Amino acid sequence: MAKTASLFQLGMDLGSDPRKAQTEGQISNRTNVTSGPWRESQDDRKDHFIVRDGKVCAGTHLIVDLWGAERLDELDHVRSTLIESVEVAGATLLHIHLHHFTPNGGISGVAVLAESHISIHTWPERGYAALDIFMCGDAQPMKAIPVLERAFKPTGVKCDELLRGETGS
Amino acid sequence: MAKTASLFQLGMDLGSDPRKAQTEGQISNRTNVTSGPWRESQDDRKDHFIVRDGKVCAGTHLIVDLWGAERLDELDHVRSTLIESVEVAGATLLHIHLHHFTPNGGISGVAVLAESHISIHTWPERGYAALDIFMCGDAQPMKAIPVLERAFKPTGVKCDELLRGETGS
Repeated sequence: MAKTASLFQLGMDLGSDPRKAQTEGQISNRTNVTSGPWRESQDDRKDHFIVRDGKVCAGTHLIVDLWGAERLDELDHVRSTLIESVEVAGATLLHIHLHHFTPNGGISGVAVLAESHISIHTWPERGYAALDIFMCGDAQPMKAIPVLERAFKPTGVKCDELLRGETGS
Repeated sequence: MAKTASLFQLGMDLGSDPRKAQTEGQISNRTNVTSGPWRESQDDRKDHFIVRDGKVCAGTHLIVDLWGAERLDELDHVRSTLIESVEVAGATLLHIHLHHFTPNGGISGVAVLAESHISIHTWPERGYAALDIFMCGDAQPMKAIPVLERAFKPTGVKCDELLRGETGS
């Protein structure tokens, strides 16, 4: 218990705005991780620095745009697609939160991973979705792209790859 | 009530992993938004497409790296810094979730905004933090940078700006 003594959960509403409605799609998988610096411990954190092309870096960050996409207003579909994306990439889901702006409108959501995160923001009226997929450790974020293509059937996909935290050695 | 009938809240744990511990820093501000396509409604969604440099786009996405930074393992400090960043940028916080990998270890967190999101992932042992700040509408994400500098005192900051969802007209 001492190990988790400083960790606690806090949930509260910000104000009592009468416009507030329900937010859906919140899943938590709370993973305790042993303490100690990453070099010395075998903890469950999966965002250790890695070597890519001879360079030490934190991980790969994909900036993904979908155009001409479908089903961008379907909350369950977006949630299951994010979860499948996490699974095929070999990542570990810690928490997912989706916000549905209207029953037929846009969705903003994030999945927090042991290896970083996936975010999605959709504009169904334009068939457009902006995602970013940041994964560290051994996870393979590019494997999420075919999942997104199958789920949303975009007519166009743009994917830029960034290396994060590059140190050069 | 009809307006919110299709919205509901769902929260659950993923499995019963004995390693699971507490996750902290979860705040929700659930905003209901009137239905209808964005062109026709005056809803509260704040991620409408905007015109930047003559181009229609979804918004600005900052990719921010902090090096030589301090206090990257302090959960309350990270949370209050994210919240201040949202405020100074003129954005609206909907939900925040932070995961603390160890009492003295890294933090992964996201703030879901009416205008998109901010994410942060920290490696205290390297003094490194990877953030991304995606804001649509009238929010001004660059205003968050001085907040981050004051909070974490990095010796180096790298900030790349991406336009998301650019349509050219």
